[in-house]
Amino acid sequence: MKKNEISILGSGLIGSLLSIYMKKRGLDVNVYEKRPDNRKGQYQEEGRSINMALSDRGWNALEKAGLKEKVLTLTIPMYGRKIHDEHGKTSFIPYGKEGQAIYSISRGRFNQLLVDEAEKLGVNMFFGHKVEDVDLRTNELTITDANGSQEKIFSNVIIGSDGAYSALRNAMLKQVRFNYKQEYITHGYKELSIPPTEDGEFAMDPNALHIWPRGSFMLIALPNPNKSFTCTLFLPFDGERVCFENIRDEKDVTSIFETYFDDAYKIMPNLKEEYFKNPTSALINIECYPWMLKSALLIGDASHAMVPFYGQGMNCGFEDCFILDELVEKFGTNAWELVFAKFQKKRKKDTDAICQLAMENFEEMRNEVSDPKFLIRKKIEAKLHSLYPKDWIPLYTMVTFSNMPYSEAYAQGKLQEKIMDKVMSSPLISQNWDKLDYEDILYQMDKAKAV
Amino acid sequence: MKKNEISILGSGLIGSLLSIYMKKRGLDVNVYEKRPDNRKGQYQEEGRSINMALSDRGWNALEKAGLKEKVLTLTIPMYGRKIHDEHGKTSFIPYGKEGQAIYSISRGRFNQLLVDEAEKLGVNMFFGHKVEDVDLRTNELTITDANGSQEKIFSNVIIGSDGAYSALRNAMLKQVRFNYKQEYITHGYKELSIPPTEDGEFAMDPNALHIWPRGSFMLIALPNPNKSFTCTLFLPFDGERVCFENIRDEKDVTSIFETYFDDAYKIMPNLKEEYFKNPTSALINIECYPWMLKSALLIGDASHAMVPFYGQGMNCGFEDCFILDELVEKFGTNAWELVFAKFQKKRKKDTDAICQLAMENFEEMRNEVSDPKFLIRKKIEAKLHSLYPKDWIPLYTMVTFSNMPYSEAYAQGKLQEKIMDKVMSSPLISQNWDKLDYEDILYQMDKAKAV
Repeated sequence: MKKNEISILGSGLIGSLLSIYMKKRGLDVNVYEKRPDNRKGQYQEEGRSINMALSDRGWNALEKAGLKEKVLTLTIPMYGRKIHDEHGKTSFIPYGKEGQAIYSISRGRFNQLLVDEAEKLGVNMFFGHKVEDVDLRTNELTITDANGSQEKIFSNVIIGSDGAYSALRNAMLKQVRFNYKQEYITHGYKELSIPPTEDGEFAMDPNALHIWPRGSFMLIALPNPNKSFTCTLFLPFDGERVCFENIRDEKDVTSIFETYFDDAYKIMPNLKEEYFKNPTSALINIECYPWMLKSALLIGDASHAMVPFYGQGMNCGFEDCFILDELVEKFGTNAWELVFAKFQKKRKKDTDAICQLAMENFEEMRNEVSDPKFLIRKKIEAKLHSLYPKDWIPLYTMVTFSNMPYSEAYAQGKLQEKIMDKVMSSPLISQNWDKLDYEDILYQMDKAKAV
Repeated sequence: MKKNEISILGSGLIGSLLSIYMKKRGLDVNVYEKRPDNRKGQYQEEGRSINMALSDRGWNALEKAGLKEKVLTLTIPMYGRKIHDEHGKTSFIPYGKEGQAIYSISRGRFNQLLVDEAEKLGVNMFFGHKVEDVDLRTNELTITDANGSQEKIFSNVIIGSDGAYSALRNAMLKQVRFNYKQEYITHGYKELSIPPTEDGEFAMDPNALHIWPRGSFMLIALPNPNKSFTCTLFLPFDGERVCFENIRDEKDVTSIFETYFDDAYKIMPNLKEEYFKNPTSALINIECYPWMLKSALLIGDASHAMVPFYGQGMNCGFEDCFILDELVEKFGTNAWELVFAKFQKKRKKDTDAICQLAMENFEEMRNEVSDPKFLIRKKIEAKLHSLYPKDWIPLYTMVTFSNMPYSEAYAQGKLQEKIMDKVMSSPLISQNWDKLDYEDILYQMDKAKAV
C-alpha cells in the first residue's frame, strides 16, 4: 500500500494554497482532486461560480506564500457598492476609506495559478482522483482514478479541504459525538453575464460591486479583466411572486428583468439564453464540530461553508491556512494532533461568527442598501471612524480590511448596531446627521465595551 | 426485481406499530430490520436502553391499533418523581392529578409484542436484512441479508422508521435543499440496575420514577415487572470533576456512588461489574427537513431524535404513526405524496417543540427538582390547575397527559413560565404560596394569551 506523509483532499483554492504552505514546511504533499485538471482545457466550470472578492485576510495569506504580486495582476479593485434603483439611478457607497478596496477575481483562473505554483514547488497533484471513503481508524483513503481503478492509500496526516460536500466530513459524520448542521436558505442563485460593449469597453463602472437590491431578491455584478461582468441573480426558489419557480419561459425572464433590472437588462444581450442554460443552484450554510479526529482535519468550506453575502468564504479559508501554518511553525510537523486541537479550539468561534454575519448580510444587501437611511448610517459610521480611527471601526471594515478575529468583530459590531439604532431613531437624522454629538456616541460605545 | 407495495425500514417500536396500521389499511407491508429476530433468543439488547415511559399520546396510538389492554399488562404505573437527596431523604412530586401516571415498560419485551401482533396480521417481517442504500430517484432499496447476499427491491412507498442513524435519511442527506442538524449533548449515559431484594421484593417504591439530582449529573431508576429497577447514570463525558473520563477503576465508582448516591449504592450489588461491562453511550438530538421526497418518508427518531429527558421519544413516534394513519384514512392509499406533504407540514413544528422541551427538561431534572422552591412552584401550578382546570394546565400535563399539539403546549408553557417566575420572585413565597391571589395569576395568563 502506498504511504503518504500528508494527503490533502481537494485542489480548490484552499487545498492548493494549503499544499504550498505544507510543501514549504518540508513535507511530501499529495493532493487528490476528483475533477480533471482544468488547465488542460478538457473541463470548464461554468455557470455556477459566484465571482470571488479578495480582501485583507486573503491577501495576508497569499503574501505569506509569496504570491501577492502574481495574484494582483488577475484582479480588479472595487472601492464600493454601486446601488442601482428601479429607474436605473445609481449611488455609490464606499466600502472603506479612500483607497480601500476588495478585489474581484475569477475562481477558475485564480485556481489555475495556485495549482501551477504548487506543482512548481513539487506538490504531487492527482486530478481525476475521487476519494470514495476515508477510514478514520486506519487513516486509509480509498481512491478511484479517472480510469475507474481503485487503490487504498495510507496517510500519516489527512486534511480535507474538499468543500461543502467533503468526503472526509462524510466519514466524520458517522462518528459518535460529531456535531453537524447543514442548512439551505430559501434563495437560490443563477449566474448571468454582461459582456463588453461593442467598442470593447466595460459596460458599467468596473471599480465597484454593482447591486440591484429589490427587497426579497437582488442582482449583483462583479467586473472581470476581459471587460465583462459576471452577474448573479438571487431569487427565492418558490413561495413569492418573483421566484425561480415562477419563471417558466423567455417572456417571464424578459418581464422580470424589464420591470426590476431595466438598466442591466439593456446590456445583457445573452440573458435569455444564459438564463435557461445555466443551472439554478442552492446556497448552503454548514457548521460542524469537532473538525479533527486524531491526525485528520477539516478546513475551509469542509468545516464551515457559508453563504456568499459577506464575500468572506475564500478569505476565511485562506485565513484558516495561515493560522494552521502558524501552528505548524510553532509545534513542528510531528505533533499533528496537538496542532489540529489548537487550531479548532482557536478558530471555531471565529468561523461561527462569519457564518452568522454572512447570513445576516443577505438581508442588508437585498434590502437595506436601497434605504436612504442606510446611506446616512454608513456616513455617520465613516465619520466616527475618521474621528476615532481606533475606537470606532465599522463592522464591514473590521471584517474586510483587518485581521481582527471574526468573533471580536462580531461582538463589537453588535454593540455598534445597538448604539446606531438609537442614533438613527432621531426623526431629524437625515437633516442633522453631520451635527451629532459624536463624542457622546463614542462614549456610549466605550461604556458598552466596558460591560 | 421484487416489487413491494410498501416497505418500512426498521422493526423497532415505531416501525412495528406503523406496520400494523398500514396492514389494517389493506396494504401489503414489508418490514426490513438489520438486527436478528430478538424473539428467538439469539440476540439480546442489553446495557444500552433507557427504560421507556408510556404516556397519553402513546396510549392513544396503541388504543387505535387495539393494543392498549395487552400492553398494559407489561407496564408499571409511576405516579410521580421520587427525589433522593444526598442523605437518602426522599420527597415525592406527583406528575399530575391523583390517578394520573406514566407507565414504565421495557423496550425489548414491548417490541416483541408489537412484532408478534404485526405478524399475526400478515405483515412480512425480514430480520437480519440491512438496508445498504436507498435510490431516491428509482425508489429502489439495496438490501443485504444475514447470509451476505444482496438484492434490490423496488418499492412503491418507502417509510424510514429506522431510528437516529436512519439509512433513508442518509440517502436524503445528499439531496439538495435537505436541512439537517445532529447535535450531541455534553453528557453520556450508562445503564445500571437495582435487583429485587433477597425476599424477592422491589427494593424501593415501584410506583415512582426515582431521581438522584446532583446539579451537573444525575441517576434515575424505573421499575420493571420482575421487581428490579433499571437505572441510568447521566454524567458529563469530560471537563468536570464528576465525569465518565474521571472514573477509571472500581475505587472511583465506589467513591462517586458512596458520596453522591449512597442510598442507591447500598442496593446495587452488581454496580462495579455493570459499570465496566456496560457501554457509555452518547445522547443525540436530530432535526431535519423536509421529511419526504416523492413517495419516501421519514418518521419517528429518523426525522426527529430527541434526548430522553421528557420521556416523549417513543410517545411522539407513536403519535407520528397515529397522525399519518389519519391522513391515509382521509386521502386513501393512492395519494402518498399528498399524505406525506400534509404530514410533514402539520407535524414539523410539534416535533421541533418537543425536541426543544426535552433538551430544556434535562436542566430541570438534574438541578431544579432538588430545589425546595421547585416543589412549591409545582404546588402552586397544581393548585392553579385544580382551580381553573381548563385555563391553567401545567406544561408537564399538556405534554404528558393530553394530545394537545406539542407546539401549543410549548407556547403556553413559555407564557406560564414568565408568570410563574414573577410569582416565585416574592421573598415570602415559601410561607404564603397557598394564600396567593390565584385569580390574578390566571388573569395575567389570560392577558398574555390574548397578545
